[in-house]
Amino acid sequence: MGNFKGHALPGSFFLITGLWWAGKFSLCYALRRSRSMGRLASKVVQRRVEVCEASVILAFSVIGMLAEQFVSDGPQLHLYDYAEHHWDRLMNWQHATMYLFFALAGAGSLAIHLTDAAPLALDRLLLGIAFSTEGFLFFYHLHGRAMLDVHVHQLLLYAIVGGAFTSVLEVFHRGNVVLELLRAALCVLQGSWFWQIGFVLYPPSGSAEWDLKDPNNMMFITMCYCWHLACALLIAGLVYSIMSWLVRSRIRKMPTMEMGLLKSREREQESEDEM
Amino acid sequence: MGNFKGHALPGSFFLITGLWWAGKFSLCYALRRSRSMGRLASKVVQRRVEVCEASVILAFSVIGMLAEQFVSDGPQLHLYDYAEHHWDRLMNWQHATMYLFFALAGAGSLAIHLTDAAPLALDRLLLGIAFSTEGFLFFYHLHGRAMLDVHVHQLLLYAIVGGAFTSVLEVFHRGNVVLELLRAALCVLQGSWFWQIGFVLYPPSGSAEWDLKDPNNMMFITMCYCWHLACALLIAGLVYSIMSWLVRSRIRKMPTMEMGLLKSREREQESEDEM
Amino acid sequence: MGNFKGHALPGSFFLITGLWWAGKFSLCYALRRSRSMGRLASKVVQRRVEVCEASVILAFSVIGMLAEQFVSDGPQLHLYDYAEHHWDRLMNWQHATMYLFFALAGAGSLAIHLTDAAPLALDRLLLGIAFSTEGFLFFYHLHGRAMLDVHVHQLLLYAIVGGAFTSVLEVFHRGNVVLELLRAALCVLQGSWFWQIGFVLYPPSGSAEWDLKDPNNMMFITMCYCWHLACALLIAGLVYSIMSWLVRSRIRKMPTMEMGLLKSREREQESEDEM
Amino acid sequence: MGNFKGHALPGSFFLITGLWWAGKFSLCYALRRSRSMGRLASKVVQRRVEVCEASVILAFSVIGMLAEQFVSDGPQLHLYDYAEHHWDRLMNWQHATMYLFFALAGAGSLAIHLTDAAPLALDRLLLGIAFSTEGFLFFYHLHGRAMLDVHVHQLLLYAIVGGAFTSVLEVFHRGNVVLELLRAALCVLQGSWFWQIGFVLYPPSGSAEWDLKDPNNMMFITMCYCWHLACALLIAGLVYSIMSWLVRSRIRKMPTMEMGLLKSREREQESEDEM
Repeated sequence: MGNFKGHALPGSFFLITGLWWAGKFSLCYALRRSRSMGRLASKVVQRRVEVCEASVILAFSVIGMLAEQFVSDGPQLHLYDYAEHHWDRLMNWQHATMYLFFALAGAGSLAIHLTDAAPLALDRLLLGIAFSTEGFLFFYHLHGRAMLDVHVHQLLLYAIVGGAFTSVLEVFHRGNVVLELLRAALCVLQGSWFWQIGFVLYPPSGSAEWDLKDPNNMMFITMCYCWHLACALLIAGLVYSIMSWLVRSRIRKMPTMEMGLLKSREREQESEDEM
Repeated sequence: MGNFKGHALPGSFFLITGLWWAGKFSLCYALRRSRSMGRLASKVVQRRVEVCEASVILAFSVIGMLAEQFVSDGPQLHLYDYAEHHWDRLMNWQHATMYLFFALAGAGSLAIHLTDAAPLALDRLLLGIAFSTEGFLFFYHLHGRAMLDVHVHQLLLYAIVGGAFTSVLEVFHRGNVVLELLRAALCVLQGSWFWQIGFVLYPPSGSAEWDLKDPNNMMFITMCYCWHLACALLIAGLVYSIMSWLVRSRIRKMPTMEMGLLKSREREQESEDEM
Repeated sequence: MGNFKGHALPGSFFLITGLWWAGKFSLCYALRRSRSMGRLASKVVQRRVEVCEASVILAFSVIGMLAEQFVSDGPQLHLYDYAEHHWDRLMNWQHATMYLFFALAGAGSLAIHLTDAAPLALDRLLLGIAFSTEGFLFFYHLHGRAMLDVHVHQLLLYAIVGGAFTSVLEVFHRGNVVLELLRAALCVLQGSWFWQIGFVLYPPSGSAEWDLKDPNNMMFITMCYCWHLACALLIAGLVYSIMSWLVRSRIRKMPTMEMGLLKSREREQESEDEM
Repeated sequence: MGNFKGHALPGSFFLITGLWWAGKFSLCYALRRSRSMGRLASKVVQRRVEVCEASVILAFSVIGMLAEQFVSDGPQLHLYDYAEHHWDRLMNWQHATMYLFFALAGAGSLAIHLTDAAPLALDRLLLGIAFSTEGFLFFYHLHGRAMLDVHVHQLLLYAIVGGAFTSVLEVFHRGNVVLELLRAALCVLQGSWFWQIGFVLYPPSGSAEWDLKDPNNMMFITMCYCWHLACALLIAGLVYSIMSWLVRSRIRKMPTMEMGLLKSREREQESEDEM
C-alpha cells in the first residue's frame, strides 16, 4: 500500500506496541524491586498479561493479513495472473507475509503461556524471527526506487534489525530490564519513523513535495532519524519514571513497619544489581 | 551436479536431518522436564543415540564423497588435466569438499561420544565449521550466473549461515532447547529450499521455464523463502508438540502417587526455567 | 566546523575522557583487589565520582550544543531557510545532534546514580548509543569528499564503533576491567586521531599540504592509525601501572600485621580471578 | 618483502605457534581432567610456561621488526624521502607495524604473568588486538593487485579474523579448551596458507606460473583453502589425541589404588562438563 495510510497504519501499531512494552516492562521491574506484592500473585497476573498481549498481537496480525488480501485493490488470494503471465500484486502479498510472522509469534507466545509445554524463551525467539523477516523483506523491497525513498527505508531497517537483535539477545538474558526498555524504545522509533516516511514520501496536500534526489535532504533525514531515536529514548525513560513513581508512591501509603522491611529489602536488591 | 537431482539429493538429506533433530531434541527436553526415566539410563541411551547419529552422518558423507568422485562424469580423483592444462571438474571436487567437512564433523562426534577423551562441545563446533565451509564454498560458487540463479543460492546461504551460527552458539549454551529447535528448523528450511531451487532452475518437463532476469520473479522468490521458513518453524513446532504429548501421555499411565511427585517436580522445573 | 579547531576541540575532549577513564577504572580495580579501604566507604565515593563524571559530561555536551548553534556563523536554531528553500547549516546541526546524545548519556547517568531508581547497566547502554549515533552520523557524513578525507574519517569510525561495542558489552559484563581499559584506550585513540585528522586536512601554516589522492598517503595513514592505537594501549597500560603502584605503595605503609591479612586476601582474589 | 621467503618466514612462525598452542592447551586440559598432578605445582609450571611463551613471542617480534628495518633494502628507520618527496618503503614499515603489535602482546603477557598486577584476561585481549591489526593492515594492503593475488590474501584474512575473534572470545571464556584448540587450528591454517601463497605467487623455478586472472584458478584456490582448514583441524585433533594418550598412559603406571580414585574423579569431571 504505497500511500500515506499504508505507512501510518503500521506506524501506529508499532508506536502503541512500543509504549505498551515500555509500560509493562517498567512496571514488572518496579514490582520486582519493591517486592511489595506477593510473588505468586504477580506471577499469575504476569501470565495473564502475556496471554492478553499474545492474543492481541495474533488478532491484529490476522486482521492485517486479511485486510491486505481483501481490500478493494487486493489480490484476493490470487497469486499468479495466468491470463497475462505475471505475479499478481506482490506488494500486498509481501505485507501479508510480514503480518504472517507476527501472527506466528503471537500464536507461539499464546501456546507457551497457556500450556506450559514449551520453554519460555521461545516467545522472544519468535518475536526476533518476526522482526528479522520484516527487515529481510524490506531489504529486498527497495530495488530501483529514488535515492531518498531508499534511504528512509534503510533507516527504518536499522530500527527493525535493532529490534530483532534485542529480542534474540533476550533469549539468553531474559528479564534484563535494560534490553526490554531498549526493545520498547526501538519499537517506538520504528512506529514514529513509519509516520515520518509517510510525511516525506506522501506529503499531505498543501505542504511542499520533497526533492527525492537532493543530498541535503538525505543529510537532514539522517539527522532527523537521530532525533526520533532521542525522542523514543526519552519517551521510554518517561514511562519508566512514571511507573517507578507509581509503584513507590503506593508503597509509601502502606504502614510504616512494613516500610522498613521493604527498604532493607530494596537495598539488598540494589547490591545484587550492582554485583 | 547442476541438475534437478543434484539439488533434490542434498535437499532430502537436510530435510531428514532437520526432522530427526527436531524429534530428538524435543524428546530429550520433554524427558528432562518430566524426569520420568532414571537419569543414568537416559544418559546411556542418549550417548548411544549420539553415536548412531554420528555414524550415519559419517557414512552418508563418505558415500556422498565417493559418489561425487566416481559417478560416470566424475573426476575419478583426477584434479588437473595435464593434457589441456586446466582443472578437472571443479564442481564435483567442491561438492566432495563440502561432504568432507560433514564427514569430519561425524567422525569427530563419533570419537567424542565413544571415547570420552574430548570435550563434548567439540561436536557442535565441528558441525558449525561444516556448515560454515558449506556456506563459504557456496559464496564463491556463484560468480557469473544469472540474477535469479545467484539470488536463490544467496537465500540458501542465509539458512546455512544461520545453521552455522546456531551450532557455534551451542558450544557455549549446550542443551538450550530453543537453539536446538532453531537449528532443526533451519536445517528443514535448507532442505526444502534445495528442492525449491531444483524446481526453479530445472523445472520438470511440462511446466514453464522461469525467466531468470525478471525482477518480479526475484521478489516472489524472496517471499517464497519466507513461506518456507514459516513452514519449517511450524513443522518444528508440530514435532515438538507431538513429542511433548507422547511423553506426557506415557506419564499419565503411571500410578497416580508417582504422578503427584512428578507434577510437583515439574513445577520446580518451570520456576527454574523462568529464573 | 571544517577547520583545524573543529577537530582539535573534540580531540581534546576525548583524550581527556580516555585518560580519566583509564585512571578511574585502574584505581577502582586496584582498590577492589587490595580491599584496603572499607567496602562501604569506597561505594559511596564511587557513586560521588560517577555523579561528578556524569555532570561534567552533561555540562560539556550542553555547552557544545549551544556553541554549535550560536557561534558567529552558526544556524542560531534556524533549521530551514525559507527565503532560498534549502536547509540551513546542516553541519552545525549534525554536530549539535552528536552532542545531544552525549548529553542524554550524561543526564541518564546522573539520574541513575543520584536516584537509585534505574538499573545501573543503563548508563553503559546510553553511552553505547551515544557512540553509535556519533558513528552513524559520521558514516553518512562522508559523501562526495576526497579519497584521503573519506579514509581518515573511516578510520575514526573504527575507534567509535569499537567504543560503542565495548560499552554495550559492559551492559552484560559490568566491572570487567579488561573491557573498561579497552574502552579508555579506544577513547584516547579517538581523541588523538581527531588531532591527526586536523593536522592532515588543515595543515598548520608552514608545513606542506597533503596530496589527498595519493595512494601512498592512504597507506601511510592506515599504518599511522595503528601507531596511534599502539600509543593509546601503552598510555592505558602506563596509567594502570601507576595506579596499581600507588595503591600498593600506600598499603605497604600500613602496619605489618594488617599486611599479612591483606596478602592472604590478595591471593584469594587472584585465585578467584583465575577461575 | 614480496617474495617467496617473505611468505615462508611468517608461515613457519605461525605454523610452529599453532602446533605449540595445540600441544600446550591439550596437555593443560588433559592434566586438569586427570588431576594426577598436584594442583599447586601445575599452576607454578603453567605460569613458567606462559612466561617462556611470552618471552619467545616478544623476542621473535623484536627480531622481525629489526630485520624488516635493517635488511639490505630496508628503510633503516627512514620514513620519508625528503629528496624525492615520497614515503620510503612503506611495505617494510607495515610489516614492522604488524610485528610491533605481536611484541606488545608478548610484553603485555610477560608483565601479566610475571607481576600478578594485571588481570589475566588481558593477554588474550592483546593477542586479539595483534591479530586484528594484522588483518586490518592486510585489508588495506591489497589495493590494485591482480585478482588471484587479492583473493589468496582475502582468504588469509578469514584465518586472521577467526584467530582475532577466538582470542577476544577467550577474554570471556578463558580456559575453554574448544576455543583454545580452534585458535591453535586457525593459527596452523594461517601458517600453512602463508606457504601456499608463497607457492602460488612466487612459484619455485621449474614449476609453471599461475595465471592470476583465470576464474578456475580462483575456484580451485578457494577449495584448496578448505583443504588446508581440514588439515589444520586434523593436526590439532592429532596433537590433542597424542597428549591425552600420554597423560592417560602415565596415570596407568601409577598404583592401582590411586587409579580407582582418579577414575571416580574423572567421572565427576565428565558430569560437570556435561552440565
